[in-house]
Amino acid sequence: MQARPTRAMAGSRFAYVKNFELADPLLPSTFFVVRIDGKGFHGFSKLHNFDKPSDVRALALMNDAAKRVVGGRELNGECVVAFGESDEYSFVFKRTCKLHGRRASKIVTLVVSVFTAAYMALWPQFFPNSPLSLEHLPVFDGRVVQYTSELEIQDYLRWRQVDTHINNMYNTVFWALVLQGKRTEQEAEQELSGTISSQKQEILFSQFGINYNNLDPMFRKGSIVIWEEEPLAVSQDSAPSSTSEPPAPSPESADSPAPLVKMRQRKKPPKPKRRLVVVHEDLIADAWWTEGRGKALLDG
Amino acid sequence: MQARPTRAMAGSRFAYVKNFELADPLLPSTFFVVRIDGKGFHGFSKLHNFDKPSDVRALALMNDAAKRVVGGRELNGECVVAFGESDEYSFVFKRTCKLHGRRASKIVTLVVSVFTAAYMALWPQFFPNSPLSLEHLPVFDGRVVQYTSELEIQDYLRWRQVDTHINNMYNTVFWALVLQGKRTEQEAEQELSGTISSQKQEILFSQFGINYNNLDPMFRKGSIVIWEEEPLAVSQDSAPSSTSEPPAPSPESADSPAPLVKMRQRKKPPKPKRRLVVVHEDLIADAWWTEGRGKALLDG
Amino acid sequence: MQARPTRAMAGSRFAYVKNFELADPLLPSTFFVVRIDGKGFHGFSKLHNFDKPSDVRALALMNDAAKRVVGGRELNGECVVAFGESDEYSFVFKRTCKLHGRRASKIVTLVVSVFTAAYMALWPQFFPNSPLSLEHLPVFDGRVVQYTSELEIQDYLRWRQVDTHINNMYNTVFWALVLQGKRTEQEAEQELSGTISSQKQEILFSQFGINYNNLDPMFRKGSIVIWEEEPLAVSQDSAPSSTSEPPAPSPESADSPAPLVKMRQRKKPPKPKRRLVVVHEDLIADAWWTEGRGKALLDG
Amino acid sequence: MQARPTRAMAGSRFAYVKNFELADPLLPSTFFVVRIDGKGFHGFSKLHNFDKPSDVRALALMNDAAKRVVGGRELNGECVVAFGESDEYSFVFKRTCKLHGRRASKIVTLVVSVFTAAYMALWPQFFPNSPLSLEHLPVFDGRVVQYTSELEIQDYLRWRQVDTHINNMYNTVFWALVLQGKRTEQEAEQELSGTISSQKQEILFSQFGINYNNLDPMFRKGSIVIWEEEPLAVSQDSAPSSTSEPPAPSPESADSPAPLVKMRQRKKPPKPKRRLVVVHEDLIADAWWTEGRGKALLDG
Repeated sequence: MQARPTRAMAGSRFAYVKNFELADPLLPSTFFVVRIDGKGFHGFSKLHNFDKPSDVRALALMNDAAKRVVGGRELNGECVVAFGESDEYSFVFKRTCKLHGRRASKIVTLVVSVFTAAYMALWPQFFPNSPLSLEHLPVFDGRVVQYTSELEIQDYLRWRQVDTHINNMYNTVFWALVLQGKRTEQEAEQELSGTISSQKQEILFSQFGINYNNLDPMFRKGSIVIWEEEPLAVSQDSAPSSTSEPPAPSPESADSPAPLVKMRQRKKPPKPKRRLVVVHEDLIADAWWTEGRGKALLDG
Repeated sequence: MQARPTRAMAGSRFAYVKNFELADPLLPSTFFVVRIDGKGFHGFSKLHNFDKPSDVRALALMNDAAKRVVGGRELNGECVVAFGESDEYSFVFKRTCKLHGRRASKIVTLVVSVFTAAYMALWPQFFPNSPLSLEHLPVFDGRVVQYTSELEIQDYLRWRQVDTHINNMYNTVFWALVLQGKRTEQEAEQELSGTISSQKQEILFSQFGINYNNLDPMFRKGSIVIWEEEPLAVSQDSAPSSTSEPPAPSPESADSPAPLVKMRQRKKPPKPKRRLVVVHEDLIADAWWTEGRGKALLDG
Repeated sequence: MQARPTRAMAGSRFAYVKNFELADPLLPSTFFVVRIDGKGFHGFSKLHNFDKPSDVRALALMNDAAKRVVGGRELNGECVVAFGESDEYSFVFKRTCKLHGRRASKIVTLVVSVFTAAYMALWPQFFPNSPLSLEHLPVFDGRVVQYTSELEIQDYLRWRQVDTHINNMYNTVFWALVLQGKRTEQEAEQELSGTISSQKQEILFSQFGINYNNLDPMFRKGSIVIWEEEPLAVSQDSAPSSTSEPPAPSPESADSPAPLVKMRQRKKPPKPKRRLVVVHEDLIADAWWTEGRGKALLDG
Repeated sequence: MQARPTRAMAGSRFAYVKNFELADPLLPSTFFVVRIDGKGFHGFSKLHNFDKPSDVRALALMNDAAKRVVGGRELNGECVVAFGESDEYSFVFKRTCKLHGRRASKIVTLVVSVFTAAYMALWPQFFPNSPLSLEHLPVFDGRVVQYTSELEIQDYLRWRQVDTHINNMYNTVFWALVLQGKRTEQEAEQELSGTISSQKQEILFSQFGINYNNLDPMFRKGSIVIWEEEPLAVSQDSAPSSTSEPPAPSPESADSPAPLVKMRQRKKPPKPKRRLVVVHEDLIADAWWTEGRGKALLDG
């Protein structure tokens, strides 16, 4: 954390060990996703009495931590969209992203670290009466996955939203059976075994008077963190999120590392101001990608 | 964070995207190090007025966070020693480690996440009057490096300790010149340019009356987090660190993942109770490895 | 090479060493190129008195070996085009290729081995009076490179053709200066140092009466091995190459390995009969890709 | 194959595609094995009427091709031992090997190419009446596997020799039952199903009068290609192999690539002259490694 003498990393007969650090660049010009996942969140959620089947505060906390990641200077504004459900979040980068020379471990650890730190920092806002303990910290692991085309990355996000739907449907009925229907967890599991989606909706409606489609869209569709152009002459106060977020850096101003690949045709128009919003929209249908917020999202 | 229906990850025509997740196992039976590094800590340390050249509180915080990593259930007791200096820490694992099927990104992100969370959680104990802000979080990146022999891993740790020494010597003289000697930073840099170790020691002594060898060994040698067998019938209260630490899990009791490799000859004797200590010892000389705490450290 | 008992690879307490074989799959759905390169061909070409600057026989031999690779059953008809110049050849595969589970080392070694064997087998046809010796064998190394889009793979081939042009231009003038102009090799090198293309053409024309554009297109543009649909009711005897080539397997009939990835939309129309041809066309301009042989080459 | 102008590989706006070539170095200081395997040799051996269960000529050809690989200038004398059985061969390199910057694909393709070329070149010596055809070439794939210790690499070779034994035992009885015992292949397979080694030996002896232990040790133990120091003042004519072999280059004289890693303590004593021999010895027992040819084989 101090200015280091430049020969510091060399400087000794032991420096040969540095040669064991192998490069791990992502392939140039792939799209890629960093997906993080809560580690042992089953126990963590019990410890802090998360509501079942879903806890609004816990999900809002995940969303705000994700906004901090996407909007933070560490990522240089290069993450274009993120998708979250339960205790996982996926951060999507375009094929032109040159962050940290596209070194895989650098990028994935950075995302995990910023997310973890933000989750810790934001915790008291969402769970003021349930302080964290050193023994039971919220911990996330991460991985990076590369894709070669827009369709694949769209399908990646569709895959996660279908997963959200399947999990939420199951958990909603499961906990209705247990909490309102007085089944044991084993009984509920057996009762749901082999049922399809329409049968689960029927159980919800006939036994508990719940219309699945009226549930909070955050539960049913997950959360999308995405950039939105700011209307001119409108103050940032109108941002839809209550959490203050860091100003979005424009990629031009940042000091990016030396590009690994010089791609052809590269002329960026000046970017308008933008801010992050969290929405709960259907991104499975094509409309979101052709006319909605996903339009032109992955271009360039 | 809820019980998930088992077909959740499949379940749709989009599930093909999961095949893009490539395996990244470490080679079986290598020793390996996870090294984490503060990201942008130059600015972070200025923001919180870290003492120069070294801040005792900041280093002690790093050490306690490292103890939380090494001793925490997440690593299953498999990290055998860690070494820290400045805003970096190295965590060493033996060749028999089978944590998480030796998946590289899983292990490196886990270490980074636990360290970040612990650093956040411990911060108020060390900097009670300098609260963290969401905009300027302590963030760490990480990498994993594999080695093939005990000598190499010993030399890795020697390399970091030599680096500690070189950096600390430089920074000590540099800040003495600036803070006490009233040079500008540029003048100090010029004055030190090309000097060797003995010349720096001479400047320190003749101009500032500082005997380098009397400085805090934590500054000069860095910090070693290492397991120590607990004497029988002694309570844990006698632990040398003021920070409470989680009980060290013994590798036997933990539910480890299915082993990737079945090595020959594997019979572990029952482990005695052990606790973590932080020491500042010379590990460059062979003595530490043949008679000191490093003895038999990497065996098995 | 015999029927092996199924437990053969296990069967002993030493079988743990098999776990050190790490998977090396290519990313699903990338295009990829296997490029092979002659090893020590400078000496090899001297030994067998190759003509300078280019040897028609040596290039035709390379082309026939490449046809054997592309058309052979080993590649299952999955290589769609190959490009050769001097002692190197590039073999291009589409993103849908599932050959050998897309294992990188399997594919690259297979291509190198088939090419080497074919080169050896065809040698006597092209150099009947210059037999090969065991000490000086024609040897090739290889690498595999992945691309994410059609444009990139087109640009890859353009890159090789530009390279062909630059090398051939240089070598043509260089050897004209040496062989006809009686310069030493050092003098020729100096004379060409810093010259641009038009100056080299001028030297060729004014000093040696050679119009560069009239040179054999195989020298100037390299060689393209590509599939051509066979006109119906025409016997295979009309194939433009004098070398007999193996029948092209259609991907449907071959027993391909279990697919690593199940992609969406997969309905293959029945393929017409096809044969391999060697052409020397300009693939740098877009026309080759939009109207010429490159049209739809990389689709699907 | 000509002198190339130095800017040849750059030189155009398409050169960005070169950045897609990712490095693939082996870890510094691992031992490694390149294992090659005949591709489709079941059919190839039928085509050329290889003797069953083992063909002396085919194995001797494999051995001579392996000697050409180990002794050839391409490997710079850095392969210390090779082991062959059936249509596979394993080439072992020490941890200090710096061949081609330890680039994995470079090394594995080189070994495969030299082996293939040598097999082709030597074929007529062993099968003078069964010429090769372009359609059915002998083809080999290859892989590279890294190990971290001498024990592991010893166990690798033990694993292959155990495999040789198991396969040879099975094939010997199987073909005795079929060729002499007039069973169909299915009957033979059934008869052997579930038998252990001693039962197979009993069948061999009681039904066919064959004492397994008297079979050619090349069949039972495979073939070891290894360097042997030449006695002083003895001509090379006394080499035990009938095949002329290329002079063994000493590592010192060769122009090796820039070392990736500078290891500590590196002082090589001058090497005595050496030649390659093919032996069929037991390397499973420790004796071969402590007192036999394997002694000190992997040192340094």
